[in-house]
Amino acid sequence: MIPTSTIDQLAGLLARFERDEIETGALCDDLAAVRDQDIARALKALSTEGMARVLEILPGERRAGVFGFIEPDVQYALLDALDEATARAVLDDLRPDNLTALLEDLSQEAGDAVARRLSPQRVQQARRLLGYPLESAGRLMTPEFIALEPGWTLSHALRHVQRHAGRSETVDVLFITDEGGRLLGWTGLRALVLGDPAAKVESLLEDKPVSIVVSEDREQAARLIQHYDLTALPVVDDGGVLMGMVTIDDVMDVVEEEATEDIHKLGGLGAQHLSLRGASMLELFKKRIGWLLMLVFLAIFAAGAVSVFEETLEAAVVLSFFLPLIIGSGGNAGSQGATMMVRALATGDVGPKDWLKLWVRELGVASALGVTMATAAWGIGLFYGGTMLANVVFLSMIAVVIFGSMVGMLLPFLLTRFRLDPATASAPLITSIADIGGILIYFGIATAWIHAAPTG
Amino acid sequence: MIPTSTIDQLAGLLARFERDEIETGALCDDLAAVRDQDIARALKALSTEGMARVLEILPGERRAGVFGFIEPDVQYALLDALDEATARAVLDDLRPDNLTALLEDLSQEAGDAVARRLSPQRVQQARRLLGYPLESAGRLMTPEFIALEPGWTLSHALRHVQRHAGRSETVDVLFITDEGGRLLGWTGLRALVLGDPAAKVESLLEDKPVSIVVSEDREQAARLIQHYDLTALPVVDDGGVLMGMVTIDDVMDVVEEEATEDIHKLGGLGAQHLSLRGASMLELFKKRIGWLLMLVFLAIFAAGAVSVFEETLEAAVVLSFFLPLIIGSGGNAGSQGATMMVRALATGDVGPKDWLKLWVRELGVASALGVTMATAAWGIGLFYGGTMLANVVFLSMIAVVIFGSMVGMLLPFLLTRFRLDPATASAPLITSIADIGGILIYFGIATAWIHAAPTG
Repeated sequence: MIPTSTIDQLAGLLARFERDEIETGALCDDLAAVRDQDIARALKALSTEGMARVLEILPGERRAGVFGFIEPDVQYALLDALDEATARAVLDDLRPDNLTALLEDLSQEAGDAVARRLSPQRVQQARRLLGYPLESAGRLMTPEFIALEPGWTLSHALRHVQRHAGRSETVDVLFITDEGGRLLGWTGLRALVLGDPAAKVESLLEDKPVSIVVSEDREQAARLIQHYDLTALPVVDDGGVLMGMVTIDDVMDVVEEEATEDIHKLGGLGAQHLSLRGASMLELFKKRIGWLLMLVFLAIFAAGAVSVFEETLEAAVVLSFFLPLIIGSGGNAGSQGATMMVRALATGDVGPKDWLKLWVRELGVASALGVTMATAAWGIGLFYGGTMLANVVFLSMIAVVIFGSMVGMLLPFLLTRFRLDPATASAPLITSIADIGGILIYFGIATAWIHAAPTG
Repeated sequence: MIPTSTIDQLAGLLARFERDEIETGALCDDLAAVRDQDIARALKALSTEGMARVLEILPGERRAGVFGFIEPDVQYALLDALDEATARAVLDDLRPDNLTALLEDLSQEAGDAVARRLSPQRVQQARRLLGYPLESAGRLMTPEFIALEPGWTLSHALRHVQRHAGRSETVDVLFITDEGGRLLGWTGLRALVLGDPAAKVESLLEDKPVSIVVSEDREQAARLIQHYDLTALPVVDDGGVLMGMVTIDDVMDVVEEEATEDIHKLGGLGAQHLSLRGASMLELFKKRIGWLLMLVFLAIFAAGAVSVFEETLEAAVVLSFFLPLIIGSGGNAGSQGATMMVRALATGDVGPKDWLKLWVRELGVASALGVTMATAAWGIGLFYGGTMLANVVFLSMIAVVIFGSMVGMLLPFLLTRFRLDPATASAPLITSIADIGGILIYFGIATAWIHAAPTG
């Protein structure tokens, strides 16, 4: 996806360096022209010791940059492999939001080991950031920003920015705060440069700025940035005091991570973040077994449902030929409905209040789908077992597709209602529920038909 | 997700205006403090005529802004409802990338109707943009940017930016081009402001800038912006001449749309973009029926597989009780595997070359999952049908879970190999394939067991 040729080439180079096939000097020259992100990505292929050796030969000012793009679990192992001076220097130069990301994934003990290498001020800052709830805007924000006072002239403000530019991740967004540090508004370097130098900063104040409270969900920060096309979103405490900012590049990763979370849930997987590349067998097992076992126990009801119709089945074993088709179709239609609904709820395309309108429409669509599929299935039924079977299959198909679609569509809304994540309505869960319903519908119709026309 | 309270309140206000319950003047005052994005979102609740009335009372310079945030299909209807002068003015002020988005969704005829209202230069520009392939970087880019010449001094460059700032969507990224318009590098307002005014622009040139060719996929543009944390990505033609730029806010929407596309495919839905809120029954039917019918025909093989074992089933109808459990478990494990793999391939977490390593690990994980689930199922089998059934269920469960997992894991890679979208390996498809395999495995084991120990 990313320029893989660059990264593959670089990874090859680094591997040869790890095997002592190229000189330090030659590698240094090559790395000078490569971006931090690419080095970090290519490092993935090396052993921890290899990574440490590469980091140590990088110029001092680049180490923290590259280190910041490495994944937190690898970062921690890497710190142990680096010589003490380099480890301290890297931690010291690490951007605050990257430091938070590293610390939040560590155990108490490992976190303390990292903290011992940090200056007291940085420990204090990190402690404060880690005090915000997991996946909150506070965890995502950087506490470094440039704030202007409303009474300053634009030329004074510009000089202030010139002096403090190094402190902030971006100068494209500058905040305006009152003497208590409360957020009044924002502006950008553009406005300072283009405006009348003698004008006051307060003349740049427009309407109330968009902001987010530090404890709110980071997904909400992503939504706000996306909806209002912001470069940076100010983060304030309950009193409106500016605490930091969330930048759009951090939010891109959140959008992707949240989509992955939803996709995994829909696929019937646990929600914990896991890089598939790096995950151990045990981690993968744990991510999957919970749902699978729950579905096995749900299937007890399916077995029970079939057993109720033992007599019917003994009278016409041919019925069981169509069991996979009937219950599968209900599950498929239901998975489709749930998938669309969950995603539309997640992106805000529809809201919880729309359920009635959507339900009516789904009923129409499901009926049409059911009739179309039933017609196809009728032919197959005729081939295997004659008119009676074909008719039972036809009717069951319509009923099962409607049943599955209803479950698939309504369950996400129901979950939202009880403040649960709608993505819990996974394809496997819908399929399992549709199985039980499908069995009862199919054998129910078959039993009724057999009793009504015992000669078939 | 977005500040719904603001938008709901606003929608209520607009609805009352539509019913003539509030004065134009009062609404104007209220709208002055509201952002374009919120007005566009709240307008959704109105009729097309209502939307047109609201747009007409907005100050001229805000109309195109609000219009740009409305969805293309609504935009077109809205143009017809606006009075001719307003429609022309809105189109004239619309940002080029928004105009492209509007035109690309229109029929030839409707597009011509829009083009007649545009100036010849704008028609020409739009034609050029629409000449790029669908979903390419060229379709997404804005052709307006600021380019600096390497020989200029920073102070000259700064004056140039001040003069032309209105032309560009952002001045945070400024491009440096040679006399032929070829991209040499980029810089930002920050560097112009912070640098020595007498220095040359060429002193700001760093390493080769990241760029994308105009015909490449927009998803690649998104990856590059995300990987390199860019604000804007330059788009060049085959000769390296700068044609425009893709900005990060456009790309956020692409990331979300592509995730939706993947989620829909995984759920066994057609890939066409569709707002669930606005979709008609027919559109929804068409999005769903293709896969559903394909799965019905796949289920013929499942029916055939069961029919092969008619004798076994007649000898022990109790076997059919466990059919949903066995085939369902294979499908569930397979869906999980496919979901993880498709997402990891899409985000670049794993690549096509990793398949062997991942396959070996999946085999281990699937075996562990199979044994755990089989142990649970063994108990259920014992309860319903005694030791023999329990043993058949136990063995089948292990085999089916491994089979399903292998299909789920390998199919996405196989699809990638044939240059097809791995997300085609949807949960319903995997489930259907697992059904067939599961039936053969389960009844195969049962038949063998019955023959080996006919007294049960």
